[in-house]
Amino acid sequence: MPRFKIVLAYDGTDFVGWQRQASGTSIQGLLEDALRALDDRAVTVTGAGRTDAGVHALGQVAAFSLERAIDAGALVRAVNARLPEAVRVLTACEAAAAFNPRFDARAKTYRYRIWNGAVLSPFERRYAWHVPGALDADAMAAAARRLEGRHDFAAFQAAGSEVATTERTIFSSRLSTSGADVISYDISGDGFLRHMVRSMVGTLVEIGRGRRRVEWIDDVLASRDRAAAGPTVPAAGLFLVSVDYGP
Amino acid sequence: MPRFKIVLAYDGTDFVGWQRQASGTSIQGLLEDALRALDDRAVTVTGAGRTDAGVHALGQVAAFSLERAIDAGALVRAVNARLPEAVRVLTACEAAAAFNPRFDARAKTYRYRIWNGAVLSPFERRYAWHVPGALDADAMAAAARRLEGRHDFAAFQAAGSEVATTERTIFSSRLSTSGADVISYDISGDGFLRHMVRSMVGTLVEIGRGRRRVEWIDDVLASRDRAAAGPTVPAAGLFLVSVDYGP
Repeated sequence: MPRFKIVLAYDGTDFVGWQRQASGTSIQGLLEDALRALDDRAVTVTGAGRTDAGVHALGQVAAFSLERAIDAGALVRAVNARLPEAVRVLTACEAAAAFNPRFDARAKTYRYRIWNGAVLSPFERRYAWHVPGALDADAMAAAARRLEGRHDFAAFQAAGSEVATTERTIFSSRLSTSGADVISYDISGDGFLRHMVRSMVGTLVEIGRGRRRVEWIDDVLASRDRAAAGPTVPAAGLFLVSVDYGP
Repeated sequence: MPRFKIVLAYDGTDFVGWQRQASGTSIQGLLEDALRALDDRAVTVTGAGRTDAGVHALGQVAAFSLERAIDAGALVRAVNARLPEAVRVLTACEAAAAFNPRFDARAKTYRYRIWNGAVLSPFERRYAWHVPGALDADAMAAAARRLEGRHDFAAFQAAGSEVATTERTIFSSRLSTSGADVISYDISGDGFLRHMVRSMVGTLVEIGRGRRRVEWIDDVLASRDRAAAGPTVPAAGLFLVSVDYGP
């Protein structure tokens, strides 16, 4: 049973998210259906990150085992032929039998895009959150940097989540402006809690609007209380950029 | 009756094009419906360029007269509130009573985007034409330059068009690569025939694929015969970038 690692991109707008759900179209479900047709049996696909409904991926990683021997290039073409254009396998390669894209990941990188112009570009409506009105990007960038390091991120976790620990290490948390109207937030870490990036961005925007000082982010972090942080911002602005597995 | 000039952007994917049709949703129709609600009477909107179904705009220009006096900023907000997110008025200003966005235009600029990677990015599927396989961008760029100047462009006109003259002046016809996978073609001229940019791109791609030499573009131009040129490429890659009116 050869095992494959694939890297995929998707426009998450029209899907219920990565994970198969009782109803609606999921990325995992689309891949499993495509592979079932290819391998003539049920195939389970494991993803590195369970992106929520509406969240996009530039470099999601997934893995599965097939009975059929197939060249990696032919696999890419065969799976893409069975997927909608909104989901594309970019590359495939053979992986170790024990490869688990979720537990073997050393780092994940997400990007969140804010459109800060007065009028939202039609070409950004699926790929950014529209925040009209002045934002202090310097203050947001300074606050973003204070999230780097090992912390308990309980304040940035969706209510009702059950995880063994809410401690995570953030390697890099940087905010930058590109063009006149786009604010881009890039964050890398060894793991992310549910809604963590989106509630971090909601907190940074409170600071950007001048409602809170930069140092407030330390209080939010220390509180370990979801109610202390800013709101969870819309899914459309969020991209899973890459998943790293080390050498 | 104050007259207004507006600049608008739209994602043309889901529309029948600029012009009102017997069925389907047009950009002109959406604007006229929004303005009728605002001015409480039928309003005619004139556009600078009649973009075809699926063609996008970054800077289409249109004009209309209203009975109601309204501040330009308030007009932008009121119209956008009545439009789908795929169509946005970017700016509005008052114009001379005789302003005609089509006949007063001195130049129009279009862009055509080709995705030349093996796998089409999901984020480009609505905004580029996918051409997998090698393309000689240098040869295409050299051929593109040969279209500059005053010529009879009859070879690049959709069959069945009726215009007084097929002579046009192309101020600039430049092809460039951006990133690993995008080929971008920018063309400015004093006017464009129906399907002109898309059949030019089809002709350039024949050269890029190595099926024809660079100089073949001169033969196509001289033939004034639509059958001599390359195919009309898909609408999704085409953008009306801007319309210029001089000082």
